Amino acid sequence: MSLLESIHGTGDLKQLEPEQLPSLAAEIRERIINVTSKNGGHIGPNLGVVELSIALHRVFNTPTDSFVFDVSHQGYVHKLLTGRNGRAFDKLRQTGGISGFLNRDESEHDAFGAGHAGTALSAALGIATARDLRNGSEHVVAIIGDAALTCGVTLEALNNIAASTRRLIVVLNDNEWAIAKSVGAISDYLNQIITNPIYNKAQRDVEQFLREMPGGKTILEFGRRVRRDTKDFITPQSSLFEKFKLRYIGPVDGHNIEQLVHYLKFCKQADGPILLHIRTIKGKGCDVALKNPEKFHGCAPFQITTGAPNIAARADTAPTWQDVFGQTLVKCARSDPRILGITAAMPSGTSLHFLKHELPGQYFDVGIAEEHAVVFAAGLAAKGYKPVCAIYSTFLQRSFDMILHDVCLQNLDVTFCIDRAGLSPNDGATHHGLFDIAFLRCIPRAIIMQPKDENELASMVRTAIEYKGPAFVRYPRGTAIGVPMGNSPSLLPIGKAEALKTGTDVRIWALGTMTADALELASRIEKEFPAITAGVVNARFAKPIDTTLLLEDAARAALIITLEDHVLAGGFGSAILEILQEAEVKTPVLRIGWPDKFIEHGTSQNELRTAHDLSPDSIFKKTAARLKSLFA
Amino acid sequence: MSLLESIHGTGDLKQLEPEQLPSLAAEIRERIINVTSKNGGHIGPNLGVVELSIALHRVFNTPTDSFVFDVSHQGYVHKLLTGRNGRAFDKLRQTGGISGFLNRDESEHDAFGAGHAGTALSAALGIATARDLRNGSEHVVAIIGDAALTCGVTLEALNNIAASTRRLIVVLNDNEWAIAKSVGAISDYLNQIITNPIYNKAQRDVEQFLREMPGGKTILEFGRRVRRDTKDFITPQSSLFEKFKLRYIGPVDGHNIEQLVHYLKFCKQADGPILLHIRTIKGKGCDVALKNPEKFHGCAPFQITTGAPNIAARADTAPTWQDVFGQTLVKCARSDPRILGITAAMPSGTSLHFLKHELPGQYFDVGIAEEHAVVFAAGLAAKGYKPVCAIYSTFLQRSFDMILHDVCLQNLDVTFCIDRAGLSPNDGATHHGLFDIAFLRCIPRAIIMQPKDENELASMVRTAIEYKGPAFVRYPRGTAIGVPMGNSPSLLPIGKAEALKTGTDVRIWALGTMTADALELASRIEKEFPAITAGVVNARFAKPIDTTLLLEDAARAALIITLEDHVLAGGFGSAILEILQEAEVKTPVLRIGWPDKFIEHGTSQNELRTAHDLSPDSIFKKTAARLKSLFA
Repeated sequence: MSLLESIHGTGDLKQLEPEQLPSLAAEIRERIINVTSKNGGHIGPNLGVVELSIALHRVFNTPTDSFVFDVSHQGYVHKLLTGRNGRAFDKLRQTGGISGFLNRDESEHDAFGAGHAGTALSAALGIATARDLRNGSEHVVAIIGDAALTCGVTLEALNNIAASTRRLIVVLNDNEWAIAKSVGAISDYLNQIITNPIYNKAQRDVEQFLREMPGGKTILEFGRRVRRDTKDFITPQSSLFEKFKLRYIGPVDGHNIEQLVHYLKFCKQADGPILLHIRTIKGKGCDVALKNPEKFHGCAPFQITTGAPNIAARADTAPTWQDVFGQTLVKCARSDPRILGITAAMPSGTSLHFLKHELPGQYFDVGIAEEHAVVFAAGLAAKGYKPVCAIYSTFLQRSFDMILHDVCLQNLDVTFCIDRAGLSPNDGATHHGLFDIAFLRCIPRAIIMQPKDENELASMVRTAIEYKGPAFVRYPRGTAIGVPMGNSPSLLPIGKAEALKTGTDVRIWALGTMTADALELASRIEKEFPAITAGVVNARFAKPIDTTLLLEDAARAALIITLEDHVLAGGFGSAILEILQEAEVKTPVLRIGWPDKFIEHGTSQNELRTAHDLSPDSIFKKTAARLKSLFA
Repeated sequence: MSLLESIHGTGDLKQLEPEQLPSLAAEIRERIINVTSKNGGHIGPNLGVVELSIALHRVFNTPTDSFVFDVSHQGYVHKLLTGRNGRAFDKLRQTGGISGFLNRDESEHDAFGAGHAGTALSAALGIATARDLRNGSEHVVAIIGDAALTCGVTLEALNNIAASTRRLIVVLNDNEWAIAKSVGAISDYLNQIITNPIYNKAQRDVEQFLREMPGGKTILEFGRRVRRDTKDFITPQSSLFEKFKLRYIGPVDGHNIEQLVHYLKFCKQADGPILLHIRTIKGKGCDVALKNPEKFHGCAPFQITTGAPNIAARADTAPTWQDVFGQTLVKCARSDPRILGITAAMPSGTSLHFLKHELPGQYFDVGIAEEHAVVFAAGLAAKGYKPVCAIYSTFLQRSFDMILHDVCLQNLDVTFCIDRAGLSPNDGATHHGLFDIAFLRCIPRAIIMQPKDENELASMVRTAIEYKGPAFVRYPRGTAIGVPMGNSPSLLPIGKAEALKTGTDVRIWALGTMTADALELASRIEKEFPAITAGVVNARFAKPIDTTLLLEDAARAALIITLEDHVLAGGFGSAILEILQEAEVKTPVLRIGWPDKFIEHGTSQNELRTAHDLSPDSIFKKTAARLKSLFA
């Protein structure tokens, strides 16, 4: 039996001899590489924290002690060490398997779930405060990446943590990468620390001191002494973190378990907030991940030796929505230097890397800072530029106030390309983009589009850029439809829908990729109900909706069906109801979309749609039932 | 003619002799005190920046140069100096008068509007980037308060500004106050600077140097020299801002125009980002404001000599919604130590000061950090506490992602008391709370309530706290209804509405304070249309809506009317439409609420409602028209 197989809970890990731990680390790496090469997943971040996670579980006792992993995509090792190896891990990120993120419902060892960056310090301060309010003695450890320090909420939390003086350990896992290379002054600052001989000397001193200590009791004493005079001894006075009144130790080799255990034991003695700065290598132990840290941050299934995608090559490979967006933006930006692309640390995920490479002067990566990204765009637009913010739907939630207050209220000419609208199946509830229409369509002046195919996406990107005001284009992740691309993107008339199929009895209004489902539904209706004709409209705009066409349709149809890849509450179909109500039209409506609950992760979009009654069959069944009662 | 009256534009200010400026400052103070004592307004912040604003307009040239005022409630002096004195200023914050905030539509001197804290640095970086992209030479100055440094987006921007190395001047106006006293480590840090002899010596050195310079040319030369060796000369190496790679100068007396002009000229020469730290006194020149900086941050009309409210005392003075919330929370928290109150720098605005004073151990002020506030609450709730976040509706927009991703997704037991839901008439578009139902009701697990009166508010606060999951209670600003209060708040059944008045032909479903309008409307309907009976329902819940009662009503009624103090797009009435559609009910609906546009500021709620067809008369007219066609 391997060492890893012997670990069924955190107690088992503590039974191992220190000398066995490097072998355990190697086994864990192998396990993670194997599973992620099959299932996809956040391989790079997890390979970087193998030793750290082992050291954490050697020094602390969860669930009594709490670990709060920022973003928590680096929680695989923690999961393996807390009884979630075996079949649960085989099916990581698949239907019926465990989540790729920490999840309070999955294990008592998961003190706090996450999927968006930057929340760990605030949550950890809440947990530490709860402990102090009940006079508890347990430990709270937040594990954050260096990129979390570009996030506003992390910095808000730092400001409060320091002032609170509560016992709280922050492990800063510094690998110099967000998904892409970290940006900004803090990142520069961390690099400066690492190369600064003063810091390195301080580290060596502490290290020697710790090495000389025989055992636990002395560490305790050392801890007490340190409480008196740490600052001058351990950390250079001028550390950024000291300005935040956070005791700083580091940088420490994050792949040396023995050292990590020593330093964590030291942190355990601190009587206030303390930050341990460790250096790790993203993707350590996997050649292909080391060679391309950005690609192997989170990845689709791949071949371990070559890193090539593990999916049989399709003859008619369609481009991704992302690439079509990215290439269209380059096309537009070439001829108009006012067009600028802005990403919040996602150049490759959003395919803004095309712009970055071809027109670097028109490209900006602001770090994981969606709020700043949007106000920065507003400032550019206030001076006549035409910024395009490419942000995932789920992360755009961070910018909601800035979209409303800084962009739309001032009617500034900012384009938002909302990536990952719809499901992000393997990631699950923290990453699905199912709310953007609802939170955007209440904002005056916002216009919202979604294309039926990649050719229309190109046109919508151009239309949004040329439109003088805030415009939003949403589109899903992954491979597009595979239609031929026009020579150049067209300008679409604002607020006009496209009739795709004739048929008057039932009119199906579909948004975006749901037009394909609508066409399929229409033909099934006409096949199963020969007396009924069913037409299809590609709505194109979720706001403003083509009221003229909708009312014409409603006047003749017995039923309007709406289809959207979005929650029903407040979504596209809801907007259709509002228009019909305002026009005093009584035509019945059947709205199809996601229900009012959080959608879990799953192997594929199809599996999740089937599980939530949104498969083509389910949609047809709902429709047929309604038609039977209407035409009875 | 007074000096102030001679100023019709920024050119006039530049004509004055330096010796005249203190008199001008005194006149400006008098003008601001007079107008705000009549109209209310942000008196404290503006009295603090009189000299700064004069110095800024002496040194720079707007609109060529751009000033970006953070929050921008401190822009009155700037407005007076840029041609907006006279009648426009007499009617400050009133219908037909100028806004209390900067507004791009109001003046070309307003480079960027704002109303929410923390956006200035991001916007300024956008404006500076736009300048550099077109190789411009103009100056960009961001004016931020010390409290802005508690805001995540400010810190995101700092991280980017430093890395960008763009020319950008940040004036840090440090008065130690947000609305309440500033909190957190950065605030402590600034205090430390001020009392630190090293900093003060550095400042004296620079000062002396600048004083010795005869004129502009030397300043230029000095600027060049400084580019080489500033750091060691001007600023102590270990400044927090230097860690952010921001050159730091200060602290400087913010009420000495001559000094400010000198330092600003110096900053003008910098070839990268530079921060000028000035010290000001909030409310300077007004005794009552100096004595109570929190109360006179922003205030209602008052008597200049005493500071007493300028409104005739009402015999039957009702409490404010805020006070009822604050006192109810204290009542609940007394008997349950798990109940905690959290504010983002608004202890008095939200009336959380009651808790602060009586149960300080259960009270937390996190600074202007709404994102952190919500995740901190989530952390507390994850460990069994029952946090209550009291945040204005408009500022809750900042926390949208955290509400969804950290609280609702994890089904954590956090209560949100959404203050200032509905209009904030004098503040205007940046402060109205008209979007919260739309952006919250799309979130699974959220429950949303609004009380018809203060007695019901108390019950809803208790109900929300006892409910095990995320619950939201929205209520307006200002004086409540004046109903008698029960002995103790009741527990309301979740998702149950209250039938207030019988009548079956028309059923009016009203949310919150709109129930009063509903009762008035019902009696007018019954008076003008004697054949029609009109009933009224106090909906209580915007989510979940009382479907059983609604469908009973719809089955009998000829018309359902919905009333809400919220935008119609995606709001309460929209949720009613969704329920009727799902139940396949065809009863016509008339939705009354705010239109799909940004609502300006105005003298009163009534004036704004009249202007937007939401007065009782307008509501009745719409209803009557509909009834005539229905019952024709």
